[in-house]
Amino acid sequence: MPLLRRTPPTLRALLTGLPDAWTHATEGPGTWSPVDVVGHLLHGERTDWIPRIEHILRHGDTVPFPPFDREGMFTDSAGQPLGDLLDGFEQLRAQSLARLEALGLGDSDLSRPGRHPEFGGVTLGEHLATWVAHDLGHIGQIVRTMARQYRDAVGPWRAYLSILGRTERA
Amino acid sequence: MPLLRRTPPTLRALLTGLPDAWTHATEGPGTWSPVDVVGHLLHGERTDWIPRIEHILRHGDTVPFPPFDREGMFTDSAGQPLGDLLDGFEQLRAQSLARLEALGLGDSDLSRPGRHPEFGGVTLGEHLATWVAHDLGHIGQIVRTMARQYRDAVGPWRAYLSILGRTERA
Repeated sequence: MPLLRRTPPTLRALLTGLPDAWTHATEGPGTWSPVDVVGHLLHGERTDWIPRIEHILRHGDTVPFPPFDREGMFTDSAGQPLGDLLDGFEQLRAQSLARLEALGLGDSDLSRPGRHPEFGGVTLGEHLATWVAHDLGHIGQIVRTMARQYRDAVGPWRAYLSILGRTERA
Repeated sequence: MPLLRRTPPTLRALLTGLPDAWTHATEGPGTWSPVDVVGHLLHGERTDWIPRIEHILRHGDTVPFPPFDREGMFTDSAGQPLGDLLDGFEQLRAQSLARLEALGLGDSDLSRPGRHPEFGGVTLGEHLATWVAHDLGHIGQIVRTMARQYRDAVGPWRAYLSILGRTERA
């Protein structure tokens, strides 16, 4: 929870008021801009994290989770200004964390079984750890995408900046 | 400048008050914790970014930059609490940006030549672009280091979380 709580203010500090040249930049066709990533986080907040916790508590591993549409933001929040997306994400994340606290989960709940539509057996603890790592991964994707706009501009320093040299996606 | 200005508040939003288990975590021997990274940024603020700009303006490419000690924080700020490092970085970055503005550099200055002790010929523009990409790279390193504390905890979701799977250093 300490990390989940920090993601909205971190994104706000990093992105609010930045020129569009940064916030709409991508790493090329089929990759996401910082704005797309915030839309994806907002979409996940609506349809993935708390809904799947409640799904596990209700169904255990007898019913697989509904699949998550990782590109849902392209219909859900298409064209919305970044400021609105950040506001929406902050509000929904606060609601998610209030709901999580209200569930009063303890250590013994972490081993509760669930069923992922692709992976099969998972646990509530794995889902919660994934929530945290997923947030951090997307902050990493945003800074990588922005850094790579300067891939050529840095000249020979590129050799020291491993963030510029990767080709895989977060 | 819009990005350089955002790095201190971004790190503050992400790290202030986080449990030590996150802020002192590393990716293994010889790798840096989030606290080490903030110390490195603080050290660079003192000895690298503005000093090298002034070096270029004074000497052009006739005198190489003094080398930068990328592990200088291990002597410079060893044992300092994260809050102090964040405060120090914020203050020094504000001074750096005030100095940068006061220099009143224009587009034509970006091609001014400098001499890197290892790379040889570089330009002022490359140095400035590197400053930005270096900030973003280290934010990326911090979130990657924290995410990897959950490399095993996420179970099969690791397959979807590319931030967990890399072995190179930022």
